[in-house]
Amino acid sequence: MKIEFNQFDEEMINKEATLMTTGNGYLGVRAVHEEKYRNQDQGFFVRGIFDQTVGTETAELVNLPDITELELRINGEIFSLNSPQITDYQRFLDLSTGELVRSLKWQTEQGDWFKITNKRIVSQKKKEQIAFQLIVEPLSRDCTLSVKAGIDGQVSNGGNQHLIERDLRVYDECVLVADYETIESHLSLGLAMRLNKSGAISAKNRKIQTSIQEACQRKDAFVFEKVVYVYSSLETDDPFKAAKKAAQQEITYEEIAAAAKESWAEFWLAHRVVIDSENAFDQLALDFSCYHLQIMTPDDPQFSVAAKGLTGEGYKGHVFWDTEIFILPFFLHNKPAIAKSLLKYRYFRLAGAKEKARQNDYQGALFPWESALTGYEETPKYAAINIRTGKRQIISSAAAEHHIVADIAYAVMDLYQATADQEFMDQYGKELLKETALFWLSRGVEVNGRIEIHDVIGPDEYTEHVDNNAYTNYLAAHNVRSALEQQVGDPKLHQQFEYFLEHLYLPNINAEGLIPQDDTFLSKPVIDLSTYKEQAGNQLILSDYSRQEVIDQQILKQADLVMLFYLQPYVFDFATIKQNLYYYEDRTIHDSSLSKAIHAIVAARIHEAEWAYEMFQAACKIDLNDLPHTSDEGIHGAALGAVWLAAIFGFAGITKNKVLEINPQLPKAWKRMSFQFHWKGENMAIDLTQDTLVLTKKTKKKLPIVIEGATYSLEEKLEWSRK
Amino acid sequence: MKIEFNQFDEEMINKEATLMTTGNGYLGVRAVHEEKYRNQDQGFFVRGIFDQTVGTETAELVNLPDITELELRINGEIFSLNSPQITDYQRFLDLSTGELVRSLKWQTEQGDWFKITNKRIVSQKKKEQIAFQLIVEPLSRDCTLSVKAGIDGQVSNGGNQHLIERDLRVYDECVLVADYETIESHLSLGLAMRLNKSGAISAKNRKIQTSIQEACQRKDAFVFEKVVYVYSSLETDDPFKAAKKAAQQEITYEEIAAAAKESWAEFWLAHRVVIDSENAFDQLALDFSCYHLQIMTPDDPQFSVAAKGLTGEGYKGHVFWDTEIFILPFFLHNKPAIAKSLLKYRYFRLAGAKEKARQNDYQGALFPWESALTGYEETPKYAAINIRTGKRQIISSAAAEHHIVADIAYAVMDLYQATADQEFMDQYGKELLKETALFWLSRGVEVNGRIEIHDVIGPDEYTEHVDNNAYTNYLAAHNVRSALEQQVGDPKLHQQFEYFLEHLYLPNINAEGLIPQDDTFLSKPVIDLSTYKEQAGNQLILSDYSRQEVIDQQILKQADLVMLFYLQPYVFDFATIKQNLYYYEDRTIHDSSLSKAIHAIVAARIHEAEWAYEMFQAACKIDLNDLPHTSDEGIHGAALGAVWLAAIFGFAGITKNKVLEINPQLPKAWKRMSFQFHWKGENMAIDLTQDTLVLTKKTKKKLPIVIEGATYSLEEKLEWSRK
Repeated sequence: MKIEFNQFDEEMINKEATLMTTGNGYLGVRAVHEEKYRNQDQGFFVRGIFDQTVGTETAELVNLPDITELELRINGEIFSLNSPQITDYQRFLDLSTGELVRSLKWQTEQGDWFKITNKRIVSQKKKEQIAFQLIVEPLSRDCTLSVKAGIDGQVSNGGNQHLIERDLRVYDECVLVADYETIESHLSLGLAMRLNKSGAISAKNRKIQTSIQEACQRKDAFVFEKVVYVYSSLETDDPFKAAKKAAQQEITYEEIAAAAKESWAEFWLAHRVVIDSENAFDQLALDFSCYHLQIMTPDDPQFSVAAKGLTGEGYKGHVFWDTEIFILPFFLHNKPAIAKSLLKYRYFRLAGAKEKARQNDYQGALFPWESALTGYEETPKYAAINIRTGKRQIISSAAAEHHIVADIAYAVMDLYQATADQEFMDQYGKELLKETALFWLSRGVEVNGRIEIHDVIGPDEYTEHVDNNAYTNYLAAHNVRSALEQQVGDPKLHQQFEYFLEHLYLPNINAEGLIPQDDTFLSKPVIDLSTYKEQAGNQLILSDYSRQEVIDQQILKQADLVMLFYLQPYVFDFATIKQNLYYYEDRTIHDSSLSKAIHAIVAARIHEAEWAYEMFQAACKIDLNDLPHTSDEGIHGAALGAVWLAAIFGFAGITKNKVLEINPQLPKAWKRMSFQFHWKGENMAIDLTQDTLVLTKKTKKKLPIVIEGATYSLEEKLEWSRK
Repeated sequence: MKIEFNQFDEEMINKEATLMTTGNGYLGVRAVHEEKYRNQDQGFFVRGIFDQTVGTETAELVNLPDITELELRINGEIFSLNSPQITDYQRFLDLSTGELVRSLKWQTEQGDWFKITNKRIVSQKKKEQIAFQLIVEPLSRDCTLSVKAGIDGQVSNGGNQHLIERDLRVYDECVLVADYETIESHLSLGLAMRLNKSGAISAKNRKIQTSIQEACQRKDAFVFEKVVYVYSSLETDDPFKAAKKAAQQEITYEEIAAAAKESWAEFWLAHRVVIDSENAFDQLALDFSCYHLQIMTPDDPQFSVAAKGLTGEGYKGHVFWDTEIFILPFFLHNKPAIAKSLLKYRYFRLAGAKEKARQNDYQGALFPWESALTGYEETPKYAAINIRTGKRQIISSAAAEHHIVADIAYAVMDLYQATADQEFMDQYGKELLKETALFWLSRGVEVNGRIEIHDVIGPDEYTEHVDNNAYTNYLAAHNVRSALEQQVGDPKLHQQFEYFLEHLYLPNINAEGLIPQDDTFLSKPVIDLSTYKEQAGNQLILSDYSRQEVIDQQILKQADLVMLFYLQPYVFDFATIKQNLYYYEDRTIHDSSLSKAIHAIVAARIHEAEWAYEMFQAACKIDLNDLPHTSDEGIHGAALGAVWLAAIFGFAGITKNKVLEINPQLPKAWKRMSFQFHWKGENMAIDLTQDTLVLTKKTKKKLPIVIEGATYSLEEKLEWSRK
């Protein structure tokens, strides 16, 4: 369970930093090296700390002061990975323990050898705590060591400064504390660092640092530890005091690491998807996904998941539909409390959604395409300046990707179905269903007696401003139907819902058996996309065609119909799904990182397990590939969620219909697959081989399960075999 | 005439960057390497671009976007000076031409050798223009080269961001233009870069960059050039347009370099102090001083000289008494127009000085201790937080170092005496004399029939809040006397001036022949300072004694009486000067960088040429020493001015009395010294040996000169010999 980079390569430095981020949903620390390297992007984030600084157009997740840097000198020589004399270099993130380790041997210019080990771990229970350890072992002879470490407030988000430094202090000669305030959002931040050694302390130019010098005997180990605490005014009235108080407690790296490792052991025991695959990479990719899903997700209903988690500045830390559709299901079936928390985040932000609806002359709640702390729309109005024309294009997503409203409603029903939590439905769900359904009532336009939804963008962003996008219309219907089922509002409103549902146009198969993605898609010209498909994810098509030319052809970034088949598997028959999957996949470049895993699910459902496996393997490589720079600005959070979805809803073949259905479709390479799955208040253990299925749960409560079309009743254990 | 650093040493990186800054008084570019190195502080400044950003207390000279970085790859390998395979490394600033050159040979990991040369020069006539050149010569075999260069707006002053990026553009595929605005002062800035090659252009995260890739044949040279232009709204309404227009002109590095070299040749011909010394370092130090005096000084009366010139962020680019007392004289006797410009800067900022006087219940003009663009006081009220106590000490200089008012008046009279420019006196000088003299009238307090000046700090900052500081009182008297001589104001005011001068207490020799530095100094205890004097400049005393303990003893940072003897040599007799120099120097640590050169002048005047020479040599090493970090935040502008003062007013022995007096005091190591000296509208050439003196000038106008006590009349040439 290790993500390893056993060669130092400056080209890979930011990818490593992203992939091996340590965190706990409250905070994330990019896996930057302890030394500064050119182009290495430091990143330290706490969920919810957003600020829209002077001269910028939207709030962004603030990149916090650097706590990772450690300048090491041995006999006066500065240590750097650029030194030519480095051997036994190893660097890995142990997913099983959450510990980041780097170890190596270094020969100084003076000819002496040293073993240098750096460790880093983020506490899982005490969410504000991060621990660092450096061990230097002189292998040749005694030496003099010096280290310089501290808190460096000379940081920005790509050049945008967000923090005002209010105070720098030192206590007991070993606790450094810094006090900051965000420029526009006026959040306070207390950052404290406890050192296990004291030295000369300096505070200047937004940095507070301790310099420690020590003699070290041959074969003795020099052990230097830092424990960092970060608090904000989102949790406590006096974050400075809280950070100071926490850091004044004596604690060792090993104590923190032991506790964190215990937490991770519990996590994996409960939530790991165990695969016996011919390709060991499959297991690693699933572990990697689960690790990141865990560290990207806050467990506080005031916050949701950023598109890049807490691993980088990409997408400014904003929350998209990614959360509800791609990330929430992992929690729904593993830790339903977190899934509820994520929906509460939307509930608490209804004001922003209603305001956006009002501004656009709609009723109800139009959730922002990009959401941050306040819940008001954070999508920039315009894209970056075209450096040749000086013009700025309007960004369409906030204006037209309204499916996010129905996606949130979908997640409300998904949660209700899986948990049967009536209390949550009554307290949060119904309000969300009502306001989102109201939005759709006002969003539809009646044309010759049928209700249509005009001028939208579906998940496929290579098609813009279309009428009756199938994904949007079906999801809107589901949204309004759910509101009606839950009887939100008064009878007059129920009538309106019924009228909407009766009259809403839902695109269905045409004479050729195709469901049109929208009113015009099928009439657009088709081109050969094979070269672009080979380079999926690179948006190569946009260097050969203008965006308008892409829009005007049958070119898909991801297929909306496939997305719809995944979410509403019971609406269409097998043959329709099969024919349309082939048709649309043929026209799909998969330039969206969300595409292949979802296609894999639908392919598995039409019994194309090997094709599904191919697409699954490609989906696993969105972040875990050998190319530099593909993840520099952060992990692809939704894509990682989708890897888990593909395993569970594709290969394990789970379909959430009125009862739970299982149609296993393990690819040939997989001998076995087992995982836990929360359903209706219980944790089921699901164990699959190519031909068998064993379900176990703790209670005797009867649970109906459909396996390959036949209905069974699961009490404590159910064994099934294909033959 | 070269400042050389022929070894790459990361400890010296910021000192090199400061010392080898290229500039022209309008702009300065720190001599950072083209590659990024940890802790290398980039610096690019344009005089007058100040901003007081969010969360800061004073305006600071804005560190502008980086234009120096150039990422070079050969056959895919990134070039870095950290590579182990670098030979023939040379780096120097040629003071004679203003060109910064780095050359070396590099062997890639693949085993191929390349010669790499980087050159940089700043235009002297077209002040907005900077040129860069890179030459790569493949010595082993053909290769593929790539370079990435552009404008990087991810900059700050020690973490304080000052610029909003408004626009990034590209024209003709080879001109990159960036448009910025300062956050609080709302200055606009246009920055353009012309490249001699075009490539793939990207604009993201405040950076606009071109990536160029080319095949290069063995023994062919790859030549890459950048020409940068920077304009601001202080000069032009549309700096973006101005920068763009300038950069659209085709021009080569060689053309720009040829013009700049011509300018520097003219400069040295006219203004070099030529020394024939046993110690070649003396000549280098003087050349280094003149070079920096030239590049630190704007020639526009809206701006003055920053304490660190345009070489670093130190002292936030603020203007101190350094300008009038230490820097202006070089220009007064070389380029009097610039000296006038510097005083006009004060004249145009009388509003700020009057406001400060008004706020403190004084009359006239109390010039700010630290001045920037607006001319209002910019000294921070408090020092940085004490990180242990959390308290902030009040900074006393702005509250009590009022001698700056008289220093400015002194410079007005110095200029008048040297140039006899009545027009300048009438238009600018008189107003300055009147307002400064008015200040002193209100500043004095009458105690038992005599006027005293209470609660001041003289130049010696190791003595605070004293009464009747000799330097201040004598300079104030000179100020008021000058106002009276120039008959500023009405007869009633003249009477007030007369009253002030008649009653002002001027400390004179006591029974022991000592002039008290202030009312209490001579009664304070004396300690042995020898260990601190050995480490002059390091403020070591403050680590052994508290500031208050230092204040309460006879401990001087620099000696006020010596400063006074230098400025008013005619007031005291030889014996008094001699006795007091010995007395006070004994108690002076020389922790101020301004101290030793001034002591050298006074020592030379009492015929202690060898002692003077020792102190001169130490003064030359304020910046030009081997220690790392002594100049990281910028050059010591006033100290460099003082080196020139020491040569001219110490060793050449010039005293500006009613007529010009010359009492040569060449140290034994100097065989000859020659320089030009502007006096009363004429340029005199002065040529000295140990025993001879030759004065020449272009006109036959008779000029009285006193040489060693005897009066001569200089027409075109005057030859004098000691025997």
